[in-house]
Amino acid sequence: MIKFTGENKMSTGVNTVKGVTSLGKNVGIKKSKKDFAVICSSKLCNAAAVYTQNEVKGAPLYVNMEHLKNGKAQAIVVNSGISNVSTGKKGLKDAHEMASLAAKELGIRKEDVLVASTGLIGAYLPMDKIRRGAKGIKKQLSKQSKAAEAIMTTDLAKKEISVKVGKATIGAIAKGAGMIHPNMATMLAFIATDAEFPSSKLRKMLKQSVNKSFNMLSVDQDTSTSDMAILMANGLAGKVNEKQFQKALDYVCVYLAKLMAKDGEGASKLIISNVKNAKTEKDAKKVAKSIINSNLVKCAVFGNDPNWGRIMGAVGCAGVKINADGIDIYFGKMKIVAGGIATKFDKKKATKILKKKEVEFTVNLNQGKHSATAYGCDLTYKYVKINAAYHT
Amino acid sequence: MIKFTGENKMSTGVNTVKGVTSLGKNVGIKKSKKDFAVICSSKLCNAAAVYTQNEVKGAPLYVNMEHLKNGKAQAIVVNSGISNVSTGKKGLKDAHEMASLAAKELGIRKEDVLVASTGLIGAYLPMDKIRRGAKGIKKQLSKQSKAAEAIMTTDLAKKEISVKVGKATIGAIAKGAGMIHPNMATMLAFIATDAEFPSSKLRKMLKQSVNKSFNMLSVDQDTSTSDMAILMANGLAGKVNEKQFQKALDYVCVYLAKLMAKDGEGASKLIISNVKNAKTEKDAKKVAKSIINSNLVKCAVFGNDPNWGRIMGAVGCAGVKINADGIDIYFGKMKIVAGGIATKFDKKKATKILKKKEVEFTVNLNQGKHSATAYGCDLTYKYVKINAAYHT
Repeated sequence: MIKFTGENKMSTGVNTVKGVTSLGKNVGIKKSKKDFAVICSSKLCNAAAVYTQNEVKGAPLYVNMEHLKNGKAQAIVVNSGISNVSTGKKGLKDAHEMASLAAKELGIRKEDVLVASTGLIGAYLPMDKIRRGAKGIKKQLSKQSKAAEAIMTTDLAKKEISVKVGKATIGAIAKGAGMIHPNMATMLAFIATDAEFPSSKLRKMLKQSVNKSFNMLSVDQDTSTSDMAILMANGLAGKVNEKQFQKALDYVCVYLAKLMAKDGEGASKLIISNVKNAKTEKDAKKVAKSIINSNLVKCAVFGNDPNWGRIMGAVGCAGVKINADGIDIYFGKMKIVAGGIATKFDKKKATKILKKKEVEFTVNLNQGKHSATAYGCDLTYKYVKINAAYHT
Repeated sequence: MIKFTGENKMSTGVNTVKGVTSLGKNVGIKKSKKDFAVICSSKLCNAAAVYTQNEVKGAPLYVNMEHLKNGKAQAIVVNSGISNVSTGKKGLKDAHEMASLAAKELGIRKEDVLVASTGLIGAYLPMDKIRRGAKGIKKQLSKQSKAAEAIMTTDLAKKEISVKVGKATIGAIAKGAGMIHPNMATMLAFIATDAEFPSSKLRKMLKQSVNKSFNMLSVDQDTSTSDMAILMANGLAGKVNEKQFQKALDYVCVYLAKLMAKDGEGASKLIISNVKNAKTEKDAKKVAKSIINSNLVKCAVFGNDPNWGRIMGAVGCAGVKINADGIDIYFGKMKIVAGGIATKFDKKKATKILKKKEVEFTVNLNQGKHSATAYGCDLTYKYVKINAAYHT
């Protein structure tokens, strides 16, 4: 069974995993907030990663693709503040140097270090600061560190989780809230486990979990240039039942995706959109995403308006063949639409459901047997303020 | 040559076309504003229409698909205030009756009447009011009518245009500003001409123009359930050069699309996004649309922030294979990005460009020879207010 060992508490996240330590500190990229993190395993790990689908990719992603060719990794070094995206050849050189610096200090191979950068697009990393910051990191690694804080850009809350699965642990930290500051981007998730799996299996399992979680998440439909999720398994806790591990990994990823949606820029509410009985899983996903992506639905949720017509509109333009006369829509457990036409629902009660911090819509397409869930947030004045009022 | 004969003036729009008269009046669906329009040709027209791709379609669209099977039409009857969408069998019956009522009054075949409804989703048409309103419409038709006003929902400006092409005229009226009122939907365009073309040709030309104009327009990515563009040609001005006519029709549709983007809900600016030198036209369109659809780009334009990184992000996630190091970006005529990296552009000047009422971005992909242009608007506090503060 999956057992929570704590959320958003000290000494959770990646630090709960056997053999894994981390650090989070300021190296001067930001004024005073933490901007530099390292996650390190005492033992070489099997590892897998998934990357953004954006055709414009940050330099660190290219380094990681190269370093993960053999499915092995031992440490991750991350900075926040600058994302090292759209920086050309110099950016790539800098990302490689960041890996080298960490490898030298940690006494491991450069090829076993993964790198990540998050923040402003189009600026070069201040390599002098990173060189100074990398010095002495081996001694700074601990089980009490605040790596989750150091990878935040303007996330309002740090995001970490730890779950037990058999005798193993999965610990993860993540960041992401849309593009909270001008040009600030990227969703990052670093997941460590002491379970033992070959990297090919890790890749498969990570992909499956990401498809259910981060890939079903949208704050603003703007796919970042630096998105990345990494799963590292050092095997110190031995073998674990694969099905149970997958379930636990799903749980971890969905948990983090929800935290990101809740912390979406300007968001006041989490929106969960369930789609049931679609013809295919792909269809279910498309429709679920179309709902959380609709600015009109997002505004209606912000305004507590039981405006089911907007959900109908979003369902219809998901790019999926549907039968409009077969659609049922629920707000929470309350049936609002039956067979494509409004029920005589109680408007006051429907409004009350929308006033909650978590708003759940369920759309039954009555066409097949496939389901999907997507995670999003409302669209508020604050979103516009954050993205219009701040300046590069 | 295409010659403007007036925009947004009295007696423009469809009324400038030989043999075409119209009316716009209040029949009581709205309190006092005009809510009922008729456009009628003295002669049976060859006609073509394109409809929303939304899987949830308004009842009037099904009536028109049936009535246009023979490529003939003589009149269009429209109401605003209620869209007759998600209204089941009764909705379809009501739409048919609306056509019958108009046909009887005008003394033409029911099958030659097209219908359109725009406004609230999920409500039935007040058929008593429409029956009363339809009485005597034949006498009310004139060359000075205000049909363009009667099809507005909460558009702030009426949208009409008239151009000369050879000895013929194209006159059009349209509506659409996103979903300005709760559940208010739909972009409608009614285009009349006295040029002579068979309906198969009209269909082809309309499709081509719509692909360059309305299909390249987005206010909020929410494809309405009632979108429709109709082209009617009564032939009273005789034959016209096809190429010239296509050019004029393109002009009319792009002009109306721009008016809609400018009048987008809450919009303070029109955004024009040009994409050049893409591998295929489809690629160019995808990238151009991705830019105007990005909430982050839209917010940056609202905030006059020369945040080119957001454009890079939008280009990269358009679903098109691109070469990030080959991208040039221009604000107006000012080069901001060269080969994927920022030029040393003057920030003040870039900001000044963004402060204009029309903001034009050009992205050169340097991959091929295909171009496209998309039309959108900025994302403002007012958009959120309009869509969150009003209630159904």
